Amino acid sequence: MDGETRTGVFWDAVRGEAPVPPAAATLGFEFVEVDPDRGTIELAFTATEAFTNPAGNVLGAFVAAMLYDTVGPALIATLDPDQFQSTLDLNTRFLRPTRPGRKLGHGRIVHRSGDLAHLAAELTEPDGTLIATATATARVIPLTEARNAV
Amino acid sequence: MDGETRTGVFWDAVRGEAPVPPAAATLGFEFVEVDPDRGTIELAFTATEAFTNPAGNVLGAFVAAMLYDTVGPALIATLDPDQFQSTLDLNTRFLRPTRPGRKLGHGRIVHRSGDLAHLAAELTEPDGTLIATATATARVIPLTEARNAV
Repeated sequence: MDGETRTGVFWDAVRGEAPVPPAAATLGFEFVEVDPDRGTIELAFTATEAFTNPAGNVLGAFVAAMLYDTVGPALIATLDPDQFQSTLDLNTRFLRPTRPGRKLGHGRIVHRSGDLAHLAAELTEPDGTLIATATATARVIPLTEARNAV
Repeated sequence: MDGETRTGVFWDAVRGEAPVPPAAATLGFEFVEVDPDRGTIELAFTATEAFTNPAGNVLGAFVAAMLYDTVGPALIATLDPDQFQSTLDLNTRFLRPTRPGRKLGHGRIVHRSGDLAHLAAELTEPDGTLIATATATARVIPLTEARNAV
């Protein structure tokens, strides 16, 4: 993990020296691999029974939530400590049902143009079986404007 | 609320005679108004501190989750008791940041064509201020296949 010389709250969390944000903790978020040079991130989430529909599957609502929390960190990993990001849109395709348990989030920056970034992510089972995919657009904002971040 | 003569687990929940599914409970889901004849639904959700980003705003992940859990029930309300639905995609636009508290989900069926339904929803503050919008596509499936539902 390329985080030993990087500073800021995000990298403190990557190194396990700071807690992840409350929403991330609720989703069972864990860092697996962060590569800001390639613009990629590998994360893990834990879907609990509290995320299930009447059939016992993880409701797509929480699948989308995990994908949301994959694309954002992929971008944040490439930002300066005085920058943050706000997601403008998230488009999710649900491919297969999934049961509670550990899921992997694979995120990447597809293209960055000025303060706009085009992002993509997949959520898979630990064995690589594809659960859902997403694309997103995000805007890089000053950390001082994080109060306005979605 | 037009549910007095309708049967099935969904309407039992609308009438408060059955619990909402675990994922809905996690989102603080409450029925406000269900109108299957118009294809509309009004819901309430409660965003807690457990849904927040580092700035204390509700992470868009949970905004998207609430919109997901608005479009599905709008469709389910119009189905027979032996039918269920599976969401194929959800496209969300995040318009404003929002803090923890009560939010309203306004969902509707835009168009139904055979087993496919085009759905839309808005999430607002209780005063009507728009937080985010979503469109979705869902497929009507037999309840016996609910094990495959996303």
